[in-house]
Amino acid sequence: MNKKVITFGEIMLRLSTPDYARIVQSTHFDATYGGGEANVAVSLAQLGINAGHVTRFPDNELGKAATNLLRKYGVDTQHIIYGGDRIGIYFLETGASVRPSKVVYDRSYSAFASLEPDMIDWDEVFADAGWFHWTGITPAISAGAAVCCKKAIEVANQKGLTVSADINYRKNLWQYGKTASDVMPELIEGCDIIVSGKGDAKDILGIRPQESGGNELASVFIQIMERFPKIKKIVNTTRGSVSATHNTLSGMLWDGQQMLETQTYDINPIIDRIGGGDAFMAGFIYGQLAYQDDQKALDFGVAASVLKHTIQEDANLATVEEVEALLNGDTSGRLVR
Amino acid sequence: MNKKVITFGEIMLRLSTPDYARIVQSTHFDATYGGGEANVAVSLAQLGINAGHVTRFPDNELGKAATNLLRKYGVDTQHIIYGGDRIGIYFLETGASVRPSKVVYDRSYSAFASLEPDMIDWDEVFADAGWFHWTGITPAISAGAAVCCKKAIEVANQKGLTVSADINYRKNLWQYGKTASDVMPELIEGCDIIVSGKGDAKDILGIRPQESGGNELASVFIQIMERFPKIKKIVNTTRGSVSATHNTLSGMLWDGQQMLETQTYDINPIIDRIGGGDAFMAGFIYGQLAYQDDQKALDFGVAASVLKHTIQEDANLATVEEVEALLNGDTSGRLVR
Amino acid sequence: MNKKVITFGEIMLRLSTPDYARIVQSTHFDATYGGGEANVAVSLAQLGINAGHVTRFPDNELGKAATNLLRKYGVDTQHIIYGGDRIGIYFLETGASVRPSKVVYDRSYSAFASLEPDMIDWDEVFADAGWFHWTGITPAISAGAAVCCKKAIEVANQKGLTVSADINYRKNLWQYGKTASDVMPELIEGCDIIVSGKGDAKDILGIRPQESGGNELASVFIQIMERFPKIKKIVNTTRGSVSATHNTLSGMLWDGQQMLETQTYDINPIIDRIGGGDAFMAGFIYGQLAYQDDQKALDFGVAASVLKHTIQEDANLATVEEVEALLNGDTSGRLVR
Amino acid sequence: MNKKVITFGEIMLRLSTPDYARIVQSTHFDATYGGGEANVAVSLAQLGINAGHVTRFPDNELGKAATNLLRKYGVDTQHIIYGGDRIGIYFLETGASVRPSKVVYDRSYSAFASLEPDMIDWDEVFADAGWFHWTGITPAISAGAAVCCKKAIEVANQKGLTVSADINYRKNLWQYGKTASDVMPELIEGCDIIVSGKGDAKDILGIRPQESGGNELASVFIQIMERFPKIKKIVNTTRGSVSATHNTLSGMLWDGQQMLETQTYDINPIIDRIGGGDAFMAGFIYGQLAYQDDQKALDFGVAASVLKHTIQEDANLATVEEVEALLNGDTSGRLVR
Amino acid sequence: MNKKVITFGEIMLRLSTPDYARIVQSTHFDATYGGGEANVAVSLAQLGINAGHVTRFPDNELGKAATNLLRKYGVDTQHIIYGGDRIGIYFLETGASVRPSKVVYDRSYSAFASLEPDMIDWDEVFADAGWFHWTGITPAISAGAAVCCKKAIEVANQKGLTVSADINYRKNLWQYGKTASDVMPELIEGCDIIVSGKGDAKDILGIRPQESGGNELASVFIQIMERFPKIKKIVNTTRGSVSATHNTLSGMLWDGQQMLETQTYDINPIIDRIGGGDAFMAGFIYGQLAYQDDQKALDFGVAASVLKHTIQEDANLATVEEVEALLNGDTSGRLVR
Amino acid sequence: MNKKVITFGEIMLRLSTPDYARIVQSTHFDATYGGGEANVAVSLAQLGINAGHVTRFPDNELGKAATNLLRKYGVDTQHIIYGGDRIGIYFLETGASVRPSKVVYDRSYSAFASLEPDMIDWDEVFADAGWFHWTGITPAISAGAAVCCKKAIEVANQKGLTVSADINYRKNLWQYGKTASDVMPELIEGCDIIVSGKGDAKDILGIRPQESGGNELASVFIQIMERFPKIKKIVNTTRGSVSATHNTLSGMLWDGQQMLETQTYDINPIIDRIGGGDAFMAGFIYGQLAYQDDQKALDFGVAASVLKHTIQEDANLATVEEVEALLNGDTSGRLVR
Repeated sequence: MNKKVITFGEIMLRLSTPDYARIVQSTHFDATYGGGEANVAVSLAQLGINAGHVTRFPDNELGKAATNLLRKYGVDTQHIIYGGDRIGIYFLETGASVRPSKVVYDRSYSAFASLEPDMIDWDEVFADAGWFHWTGITPAISAGAAVCCKKAIEVANQKGLTVSADINYRKNLWQYGKTASDVMPELIEGCDIIVSGKGDAKDILGIRPQESGGNELASVFIQIMERFPKIKKIVNTTRGSVSATHNTLSGMLWDGQQMLETQTYDINPIIDRIGGGDAFMAGFIYGQLAYQDDQKALDFGVAASVLKHTIQEDANLATVEEVEALLNGDTSGRLVR
Repeated sequence: MNKKVITFGEIMLRLSTPDYARIVQSTHFDATYGGGEANVAVSLAQLGINAGHVTRFPDNELGKAATNLLRKYGVDTQHIIYGGDRIGIYFLETGASVRPSKVVYDRSYSAFASLEPDMIDWDEVFADAGWFHWTGITPAISAGAAVCCKKAIEVANQKGLTVSADINYRKNLWQYGKTASDVMPELIEGCDIIVSGKGDAKDILGIRPQESGGNELASVFIQIMERFPKIKKIVNTTRGSVSATHNTLSGMLWDGQQMLETQTYDINPIIDRIGGGDAFMAGFIYGQLAYQDDQKALDFGVAASVLKHTIQEDANLATVEEVEALLNGDTSGRLVR
Repeated sequence: MNKKVITFGEIMLRLSTPDYARIVQSTHFDATYGGGEANVAVSLAQLGINAGHVTRFPDNELGKAATNLLRKYGVDTQHIIYGGDRIGIYFLETGASVRPSKVVYDRSYSAFASLEPDMIDWDEVFADAGWFHWTGITPAISAGAAVCCKKAIEVANQKGLTVSADINYRKNLWQYGKTASDVMPELIEGCDIIVSGKGDAKDILGIRPQESGGNELASVFIQIMERFPKIKKIVNTTRGSVSATHNTLSGMLWDGQQMLETQTYDINPIIDRIGGGDAFMAGFIYGQLAYQDDQKALDFGVAASVLKHTIQEDANLATVEEVEALLNGDTSGRLVR
Repeated sequence: MNKKVITFGEIMLRLSTPDYARIVQSTHFDATYGGGEANVAVSLAQLGINAGHVTRFPDNELGKAATNLLRKYGVDTQHIIYGGDRIGIYFLETGASVRPSKVVYDRSYSAFASLEPDMIDWDEVFADAGWFHWTGITPAISAGAAVCCKKAIEVANQKGLTVSADINYRKNLWQYGKTASDVMPELIEGCDIIVSGKGDAKDILGIRPQESGGNELASVFIQIMERFPKIKKIVNTTRGSVSATHNTLSGMLWDGQQMLETQTYDINPIIDRIGGGDAFMAGFIYGQLAYQDDQKALDFGVAASVLKHTIQEDANLATVEEVEALLNGDTSGRLVR
Repeated sequence: MNKKVITFGEIMLRLSTPDYARIVQSTHFDATYGGGEANVAVSLAQLGINAGHVTRFPDNELGKAATNLLRKYGVDTQHIIYGGDRIGIYFLETGASVRPSKVVYDRSYSAFASLEPDMIDWDEVFADAGWFHWTGITPAISAGAAVCCKKAIEVANQKGLTVSADINYRKNLWQYGKTASDVMPELIEGCDIIVSGKGDAKDILGIRPQESGGNELASVFIQIMERFPKIKKIVNTTRGSVSATHNTLSGMLWDGQQMLETQTYDINPIIDRIGGGDAFMAGFIYGQLAYQDDQKALDFGVAASVLKHTIQEDANLATVEEVEALLNGDTSGRLVR
Repeated sequence: MNKKVITFGEIMLRLSTPDYARIVQSTHFDATYGGGEANVAVSLAQLGINAGHVTRFPDNELGKAATNLLRKYGVDTQHIIYGGDRIGIYFLETGASVRPSKVVYDRSYSAFASLEPDMIDWDEVFADAGWFHWTGITPAISAGAAVCCKKAIEVANQKGLTVSADINYRKNLWQYGKTASDVMPELIEGCDIIVSGKGDAKDILGIRPQESGGNELASVFIQIMERFPKIKKIVNTTRGSVSATHNTLSGMLWDGQQMLETQTYDINPIIDRIGGGDAFMAGFIYGQLAYQDDQKALDFGVAASVLKHTIQEDANLATVEEVEALLNGDTSGRLVR
């Protein structure tokens, strides 16, 4: 568990309305900073893993504040670079019951989007690293970000790092003239572990289920592994949305042979739903590093994600002890004195 | 959908305790302004309907702030008049679970209560209007308010406006020497559409069910329509109170022939229960104007009211798109990115 | 109902994170003051009972603020003494759903812990009192506190007060060289009524069930009463923890002959779980004084405790009318206008 | 210093905008409760004087909260009576620099205004009292309040209490058909000590200066004492308003022979200007009781008032030690560690 | 005073740190919406002038919230157009004493910056208008905005409106390939009244003082009027910065013949310095419309600006009565009861 | 400027009342973490200096939160050790005008106070360090802390680090049986630079001025240097307290030959006075490292301290650019756009 885990991706200023207010009602915003990949790094650091994040911030007070948040939670920020126009922003209106949360993105023209290929020296970044994690959001942001990501994967592969990705298709991104199908396959080729759902597989890779019912997802994962032989494990979570504040969550993992599954957790009320998937990924990476047991890693990832839903802001601040308590069946939330 | 909808009634300063605090615990109050009829106007304006509200405020900072709130949400305030002693106030202690919300009224001697018959020129108010909406609260406040309301209905009838009312019996009002039975019938006579429950019918009109079981309410509505032949539709909502923060809601409409019904929604947690009925009325009026289909209008009204329960302050700020998403079956509150 | 109820025990400064934040996230704390026995006194005062609390505070701003809180809610504070180093503190991180609330205690070296036997003149304290209530937390804090408590019970017995105790075993206390089994029995000897669960009986008295199933608890209570013949009633509550924000609650009472039971309440969401047991005790004492009917007293205690879970801060601020409304079956939380 | 000081007057709910916001901007209000005479009682209690306040509150949550505030600060509330419609309210918009603070009163029809002469048993109230303090606001509120006040003074005179009054002319009150000149003289007749400025003397008593310059005020006080021979001391403070947040303050006392004066203090910034005069009165009463030295009492009163301007809410929470530190010349506000 | 005043310019979301916090410290931002020209419109509306603002917002929640703010304060928003990517944002870190306030702009790529010439129908906008006001910020934002502004001035000139401008040179804008000297002169040509300082004249028009001392500024204004014969009045304010929270302010007006001047006001503390110049302009326009007296208009403008410094958010919410009270010499901020 | 600066000392949880509230009024506290030496480290890190802090925290949420604060601001926390009972706490009531701020300490029995000599491996701590800074607070806390401090100085001397100390006499500490005169001299012996005022020299070293007037302080410093020949520079600041919110500040340095002095700054209002001295020390250390010019270092230190007074929380967050702007004479606080 000693080698560093490096994550790479954009971090945005998150401005959320307090107390379930609508944006048009709100005269102030709670401010934090987050992004899918950085959330994984923060979460790993809370689990005791040596984690570093690579991104680009504008050289102003907001870039400084975002860096500080990562440092606060123990993430190595030495490879962050500064420059460009602005930090991406997203406004979050937190929903409740039948009213969904709503995100208004204002992330165009960001310092990260204007990344250029040679800005990051991946050899240096990966000098003491053992794992690299990226998501499908990064190559969707800009051509420059996509090329940077590709270089990162290449260097990681050369150096023998484990490479994981949440391939995550966001149709509102991909505005720079290329599609996910154009770009993603050659990035996925370099991965050892991916997170993918049925929809991602179809939208990004054009892969559709060949069976239905219980074997539907397995049939998708089999095709993915055939096409990308480096991939050894495909994981996924299933979310049941009872309401904006009440979800269920479970996870599954295909190791090429069999589908491992977890129990289904009930989460009610949800305190902050953002970053649930990132918390899963961090928990799963922790599990891979700590247990060498896919079932335990998967269970840990899902339990970590469930806990994240009860914690404010983007990143999971649960500790190993807390995740294990939940894993050991304590879902009752009894007061810890 | 072009003609203006005019609402008429008192607006109070609402002072509510934050975070479920009791009034005796609270060292500050959240402040907003609302009233049953104004809530309908605000909600209609969010749905894209041209809406105006008529009321009377004291000529001070609080009257100004209340006017500003209506303007903020796009309600026409040109016919508001100023004068009198004070703005009515209500203190709201928000309950949770088995503890009910509690309202402490301080509305006596208000600018609205001291309305006199000739203060409002209804001919001018209704110049470009197509619909007039009032509630049973207005004539319950004072003799002057009751006379004003009666004149409004008369002028509305002369000018051919649709007239709707939520007849709403509040037994703690009616303190000025007349009873609801004295005053309300001649006001209801001028209505095309009313909201009435079984209790309102009994308390105001002395009408009791002649059948029981499934036809009980229909038997009440039939009697109402016999007595008030101008009424073409009677609507009502049914609220199931599981707890202060968990309700169910459905609606029904009697068109003289048949009872239309909606699905029953589950609302948990409730963020703000005040104005649920007003949101229904606004949604129903919108539906009448937009769809010319009673079932769709009723469905829209109930879905709008359900959404209101998830929105802070008195008035419903949901848009047509949001209500339609819920109508189309999306009760899961999935994140909208 | 005229004689005063005296409670005795430590009061701590409670610093809780707002909005379910974790302690590591929080840049401010909500502050209040509470302690098991004082919570009983505050709650009794809201129920109209003449109540006084005896404790020791440091002679500084925090001791003054804590005194003020008791006075605010009508508790007699004339017998509080001042001196010593510091006020005990506890930090509360409020959990939600599967994440439990967490308490970080910082109560060592407190003014109360350094109580010495002669600091309190119990004859004077009990001059106009009819009931004395203490808990198992007090003798667990320090040798001095234990001796003070013993003297209080002795004087109370001499003067013929009713003595009640929540015997409450907290294994993290008892750090001063004696165990609960060393100290508690001679204190329990002086009691007329105790609150005890199965675990407390085992940990403190070494008493284990002699039967299983439905009669398990009765078999424990029978043994307690055999050993402590002054005890006439043993009460207990049963909490079901669905999650940190969703519990169930019921109560039972053994009067030496039979086991009385209450209905089981569902509490969802919980607003503040701290002080639930104290609210029960206060409600039960109120019931004993007001009704002379064990079933009614037990029912009142449980309903009071249920309401407490919906009220912020340590002490129950529900009134007799509110508890009775719940007792009369109104669990729906309908708006009280 | 053992006998109780009784104060009598209305207490209002004060709703103030935070952070210098205007009322039309503000979406919440800070809430506290205060009134000129009650502020004197609260302040006296902080100075260690046994103080009680007599007033009338509505029998609702707000009357309860107001009572609690007095109790919190150690004021005896046993003679408060409950009934009537509502609690008086005032809205406070806090000014800064050249923008003055603005008060919007909403105090008509209050529980206090509807006081009737026999509601208060002054013999009982004054049983253990040595001092009675009232202000010119009370008889200005309603005929009933004026008669109550008159009875209080009569009984106080019979029982030999010291009677003090801040005669304080508020021209916006006195709406019930009588003027200050009609009512006040017979109340002032019963006083031993009054606070009066030049304006009050003219508006209430028709007394105008007979000299100008340095002897102007003395010439007014001489006339007052001639007309009201029971009065032994007349005190007054002089406020210099540099801006809404920067004032100067000094005091003077006429004992029939000479004019005592204090230094002039500079107060910048002012945190809360409300209750400055009440803090002076409380400090002066304390000084009279503690020192038997008019100069020291006057100095103490002015220093107490100066400190009040730095303390939030209506009442002065400064202790004797703090006032004395200021009296001893420490105006530098050096950190007390 | 009946014809409408139209203002035109960008409105940004303003996110400011509360309580003088630095951006890197702050976990939330106060949110409002403002812009130089819109601030003039809001201020005019508070002074009772019929005012409308023209701008472009993105068609999202933030554009809606900004529109609502204008409506709230009574500004006509019917000519606002919707479209484009984002709303401009500025982050404000409020300074104190020797620490200056700091603004971090994030206004590139805004909906307003991407305005195209034909998007606004100025004939319709000016249909019922009598005055048009713009500032030097608008043409500095983008080529499109500059062309729109030029068209507006042309149409305003054709229709005989009074045209005013605060020519305001911001060197950090003007990024689109043209300089102020390229663009501004032909816009200034259409103006009747401008606000200009010595620096603006030099930076924009290359005009330098030809005299020094007391006649320095007059020598600049004389040159401006020679070059732009339509201009009849040039106004300016002089700010003395003692510290971030303490300024002085005075104004002057050149009418072609003489230099009118106002008194110098002391403002300490400043509550919100943003929009001070806009408040002056609004006050001056009000004065021109209300008084037909340049000295009174100038005095009114400066007093209005001084008051603005004591009011939170961008726009001046002072009323005519409040400005006149200050004009009449009441700078003491005495409590208004 | 490359070698690390190491600071050593206790960090406390600081709980301060917001908005100038008194502790007895406040229902919440703002929370941060600070201590004299750690404040120096945080401030140095903002100035771009590589800084690390050594301390001991309890192994709980509060120790974790305190560590996070240091990390957030870029301080190296790798040598912090964990264990012991509790974190020291201080409560801060922020004063204004003539009311001083008040600190209630609750720091006894802290993790730091129970430090034992061998807990810290100073050889490892100082491996890459060039400067060691401590204060007179540390040896005043406990015998263990004093011994640790002594060892640190010894190792620092062996390794050739520059050693600086703020010798800072706090009479309320030194409770463990030794006096400052017992302990401090042998610690001061190892120092190169100290901060000392006249009072510290007398209280700690028994050194009194041998001259009066302008040479008074020099006469003290000469004696100190005679006694401690390693000391090369003695610095000091002079604070003028106009009020709690208005101070003046200047600095002086004795280099054995001459007394350098700075200008006197006016600070009004003060936002947060805590940590003013620490900010000076950090600024002075920065100056020593960056400029090799005592006058410039002294000027930088004083300007840094002045800026700190305008910044919330314990540590100075000003950057080099900001301090230099003030040094360059910009005390006007003009808005930086």
